Amino acid sequence: MTEILYGFAAEIGETEVLNQASNLPHAPLAVNAAHVPLSGGTDPTYGEVRWRTLINGTAETPRDMVLGIAEFEAGGRLQAHRHDPAEFYFGLEGAGIVTIDGMPHDISPGVAIYIPGGAEHGTVAGGEGLRFAYGFPNGCFEDIEYQFSAQG
Amino acid sequence: MTEILYGFAAEIGETEVLNQASNLPHAPLAVNAAHVPLSGGTDPTYGEVRWRTLINGTAETPRDMVLGIAEFEAGGRLQAHRHDPAEFYFGLEGAGIVTIDGMPHDISPGVAIYIPGGAEHGTVAGGEGLRFAYGFPNGCFEDIEYQFSAQG
Repeated sequence: MTEILYGFAAEIGETEVLNQASNLPHAPLAVNAAHVPLSGGTDPTYGEVRWRTLINGTAETPRDMVLGIAEFEAGGRLQAHRHDPAEFYFGLEGAGIVTIDGMPHDISPGVAIYIPGGAEHGTVAGGEGLRFAYGFPNGCFEDIEYQFSAQG
Repeated sequence: MTEILYGFAAEIGETEVLNQASNLPHAPLAVNAAHVPLSGGTDPTYGEVRWRTLINGTAETPRDMVLGIAEFEAGGRLQAHRHDPAEFYFGLEGAGIVTIDGMPHDISPGVAIYIPGGAEHGTVAGGEGLRFAYGFPNGCFEDIEYQFSAQG
């Protein structure tokens, strides 16, 4: 089954591997972030952050983990919010500040941040922008309920 | 409690934040990989890989996720093995090949690989070495049982 999936997926490109494999939770997956389109950037509730979802499942076929990359222009923000699952950030490029329950933490390449489940957290990028990987121990990104603090 | 932890931890360095916070599963954690010592590299069973554990818990105080960085010199290997939880890799530097259930996948910066739970997987670095982040949806790295294929 895995061989069949990959034989097919190799013809349709790596982004499609992601989608195809979402229906086969026990298949391996390899995806290059450069081939995944950016989401977000249009809703003032959550700020100017954009992201690329790299590993994800669906409600019907969860995949145990969610992994993505968040990208910020200079001064870009992800507004303060919380969600039930814990989350990690891992700095890739640029720099910024991640404030967790009121405490600021610098993020830059090589810095890992653990955000406990339910903790309020927000990010602001520095003058060179910011890129970090993020992940959840959840089977499906769409099942994670973001509660933005500004929504009361 | 969080403020007390961080007030103390700031005096003893980021590596110690990791250890201190392991006893407080609901505290945030920020750790710079450059300050975390390398483990491994001494056991021929698993190969020449070395790693830095960035986010981890303990059996008594699990932390929902494990995050680390694996580092390989040119041609370095992590021998074929399997474990019950799924795992992700995310390429940071260099290049190599990750073989999952017999299928080779190229890894390089920006490439995410999802390894299903129980799948056999091994890595060999290319001529410039390899560095990738890895993660598990588990509360404690030490609870993950690695079964190396060469051990039969």
